[in-house]
Amino acid sequence: MVAERKMKPRPEGPSQARGHSTRQRILDSAMKLYLSQPTGDVSVAAIAADAGAFPNQVTYYFGSKDSLFIHAAFLALLHDAERVEAVGLSVQSPSSFSSAMARTVLILPSMPLVVRALAVGTSRPDLATVVDQHLNLLFRQSERYLARLLRQKSWEIQRPLPVETRTFWSAAFGATLLSQAGVTGDGNDLDLAGTLTVRKG
Amino acid sequence: MVAERKMKPRPEGPSQARGHSTRQRILDSAMKLYLSQPTGDVSVAAIAADAGAFPNQVTYYFGSKDSLFIHAAFLALLHDAERVEAVGLSVQSPSSFSSAMARTVLILPSMPLVVRALAVGTSRPDLATVVDQHLNLLFRQSERYLARLLRQKSWEIQRPLPVETRTFWSAAFGATLLSQAGVTGDGNDLDLAGTLTVRKG
Repeated sequence: MVAERKMKPRPEGPSQARGHSTRQRILDSAMKLYLSQPTGDVSVAAIAADAGAFPNQVTYYFGSKDSLFIHAAFLALLHDAERVEAVGLSVQSPSSFSSAMARTVLILPSMPLVVRALAVGTSRPDLATVVDQHLNLLFRQSERYLARLLRQKSWEIQRPLPVETRTFWSAAFGATLLSQAGVTGDGNDLDLAGTLTVRKG
Repeated sequence: MVAERKMKPRPEGPSQARGHSTRQRILDSAMKLYLSQPTGDVSVAAIAADAGAFPNQVTYYFGSKDSLFIHAAFLALLHDAERVEAVGLSVQSPSSFSSAMARTVLILPSMPLVVRALAVGTSRPDLATVVDQHLNLLFRQSERYLARLLRQKSWEIQRPLPVETRTFWSAAFGATLLSQAGVTGDGNDLDLAGTLTVRKG
């Protein structure tokens, strides 16, 4: 995880090894419970119980419930990344790549969570760094993936790699935000594939 | 306003005419105060005082503070629309139109408010209809504006009008969400202009 909190050794706290595993169990439980509750109605007590931890350990490792939620949402997106990366294996043309990518991203189980995490971030300036680190990890991974694919297929894009990936993700997050906020319509009202500029080289 | 609440005549309530003007004053005050407070830290009491109304009139006319905030955010965007529509008057080419449009929209004072309103909407399913009505008004206005401009300039777009405007707004909202949530970088990292497909006819 890119946004691992730096833990000072504390004589009375859990050992670093034990601490890491408790932290990871809390994070895994939070991800699982948030994914299973589309309304986001998950209590710290339920997460702690699922992880076999005490509620105050959530505060100890993550600072706040909002911070844990942001970490859990981006962990879910990281898990979904495999599904996204598989898209490149099966497609023959740039246009079928762009369409498959748009279709896949819009139905990722983690997308509503990530958009809600970003929404939480808008009212929690103190968590801006956490959000920023996770997003930059996402952007860097996307750039590496796309660069490798373009090389393998001898395809090209019409703008710099960081601009390509940020424009695509902005549109994907915006579309998910609109649908989560209650705007009617479906993916057909939106040309997310058209925000990618992949062409034959 | 498209999302005007239907008011049942109530013998003990304010008269419809008076009621409308109190409602409008509350809405105008809310818009003004939210625009002047980037953190969103505005109390119902402050809005009521500014509007010369009682705090419980906010609940009477809008149901809740969240609902008032959503109405106020979209009213601010409606005010900003003039600035957006002026873009079409001054540009000569499709590419300068797309660039000017992207630049203008990303710095509208109302955009952070609208994105926060959408974020509020994600956790308030009971307000989905309010959000949906405002967004559909925005989409319809954008379509009418773009259709008129394309006719005047003899320009074309490469996909249906509703898809063009929704794709553009999704990317604009997504970009604003990312920047509000704390992601570093600026408009140069993003090709919002490239989400428009306006070409010479």
